[in-house]
Amino acid sequence: MTHITLAHGNGGKRMAQLIETLFAPLYSEPQLLQCDAAALSLPEGELMITTDGFTVKPLEFPGGNIGSLAIHGTVNDLAVSGARAHSLTLNAFIEEGLELVQLERIIAGMARAAAEAGVSIVAGDTKVVPRGDANGLYLATTGIGIRQPGLQLTMQQIVPGDRLLVSGPVGDHGTAVMLAREQFGLSGELCSDAASVHPLTEAILTLTGLRFMRDPTRGGLATVAHELVRGSGCGLRLYETGIPVRQTVRSVCDILGYDPLFLACEGRVVAAVAAEQADELLQRWQALPQGSGAALIGEFTAPGEMLVLETELGGERLLPELEDEPLPRIC
Amino acid sequence: MTHITLAHGNGGKRMAQLIETLFAPLYSEPQLLQCDAAALSLPEGELMITTDGFTVKPLEFPGGNIGSLAIHGTVNDLAVSGARAHSLTLNAFIEEGLELVQLERIIAGMARAAAEAGVSIVAGDTKVVPRGDANGLYLATTGIGIRQPGLQLTMQQIVPGDRLLVSGPVGDHGTAVMLAREQFGLSGELCSDAASVHPLTEAILTLTGLRFMRDPTRGGLATVAHELVRGSGCGLRLYETGIPVRQTVRSVCDILGYDPLFLACEGRVVAAVAAEQADELLQRWQALPQGSGAALIGEFTAPGEMLVLETELGGERLLPELEDEPLPRIC
Repeated sequence: MTHITLAHGNGGKRMAQLIETLFAPLYSEPQLLQCDAAALSLPEGELMITTDGFTVKPLEFPGGNIGSLAIHGTVNDLAVSGARAHSLTLNAFIEEGLELVQLERIIAGMARAAAEAGVSIVAGDTKVVPRGDANGLYLATTGIGIRQPGLQLTMQQIVPGDRLLVSGPVGDHGTAVMLAREQFGLSGELCSDAASVHPLTEAILTLTGLRFMRDPTRGGLATVAHELVRGSGCGLRLYETGIPVRQTVRSVCDILGYDPLFLACEGRVVAAVAAEQADELLQRWQALPQGSGAALIGEFTAPGEMLVLETELGGERLLPELEDEPLPRIC
Repeated sequence: MTHITLAHGNGGKRMAQLIETLFAPLYSEPQLLQCDAAALSLPEGELMITTDGFTVKPLEFPGGNIGSLAIHGTVNDLAVSGARAHSLTLNAFIEEGLELVQLERIIAGMARAAAEAGVSIVAGDTKVVPRGDANGLYLATTGIGIRQPGLQLTMQQIVPGDRLLVSGPVGDHGTAVMLAREQFGLSGELCSDAASVHPLTEAILTLTGLRFMRDPTRGGLATVAHELVRGSGCGLRLYETGIPVRQTVRSVCDILGYDPLFLACEGRVVAAVAAEQADELLQRWQALPQGSGAALIGEFTAPGEMLVLETELGGERLLPELEDEPLPRIC
């Protein structure tokens, strides 16, 4: 059998085979897969939990696939909250007709990403849905992480004068998936930035002036900027020339009429920090391979000020909030 | 706006509105919805984790909907593991075009089920997928529960002579959904049995002879019986006349050619117990409203024996294992 059938989801023999052969190696304790729930033994610290659903078209793209994306995404939500991911659960909604070799590649991507991030997959469930549903595969993951007690990272701590930094160029993931999807025939050298951001967050947690971190995924940097303005009560001035965007991403966006500031990243961190520690934060990031492209990109302003983008030519423009669907659907 | 649009999933303003108006009331601390991860504070005990995906057609049926089903299913996987559910995370894959009033009813069902089971929803994520995908709505939930340390419930503890009991009639859920789905025009008085089984499991946890519990969901009682034979290494003899099946369920199955032993339950428990405590277990269950229909349904036999069904007429038949897809797809 080379493709998924509905019988792979009926609770019987074929489902048992699918799980034993393909999914079992993913799990830290495969023998627990026959259990209804698994025991969790966690190190000391504050327990953090996050959950995320993943849909991406195509399922595989330069730099990753939906499996590695799901692991990274969950690890990253914990990382930007100041926690280290420890255990993950995995739900797969698999479409009837999905090729087993593709599912194998996706599971391999997941296993690799989990190993790199040092996280165990402790429980899982699979459902098979009829042909035509689920675009091949949807994943949902829940992550449990441990945070040093007492750590406070909230947007409410941000004050005027605080600086905003990003750990690398924005829009790589969104553009890579868009190119893979639409087969525009444009240069395919661009890779998704999808990766664990834990090294980046870990490196700056000891900065006493660190206020808040977030990974700019769905809706991109612009959407995080709006969230920061809403959550902090401050205004925010972004320096357009300071925001790192790869030339390929810029060209593709120019051609297609998209704004890279709204495109998803899957391996970047945005951090708000006290002005006097902005340089130190930048140096710590730039010292890491994942942070070599880090940059200072903005500054918080007085309450009541708007979110403005200081343009290349010294002017200002307002950054609109995503409302209807102006973007390529990549997730 | 009366229906879900793709813009409800783009990370922008409409998504924020959807979450604030519809989903926020579900959560124990709605203000945490703007965070990437939530802190969890748990009572003492062994930490247990489980995860499950939910797809059901139709999304609403007599006795519940996909929302209440997801909560009960997760609470129940923890309950049969000997744990009490404490916190849940929720993922929703919503199809473009889903009616908002239907989504509201489903969310209300979820809220009610969570309140009844005493469980908090602590984190969540929503994705909107294009029209034609996701059959309206898929849900994935992860549950964290607490178990009394030292409790051992494994199939490996089962020995020949142990008894098997079920907490009530089987096949109600499967039949109710099938009737709702196919609109056979048959009597609609049958309700799904979907409910929290925690009162049932809690009532028998102190029995020292309790070996193992499971809720017979996908694949029904017959599939659990096969798992028990494989996992225990024992044979198993089921008494066909002892297995409670409602007359309506039996009639519908007779007409349509299904075997109720393979139909899903969503509010029943199957328990394996030492022979000398079988009566005590039965009494404890029958003393509860959820367990009034409980029955002794079988007995484990020597290793190497088969799974056999002792028929009404005193004969024996083998119970096949679910292999291809002989059943109405209800989940």
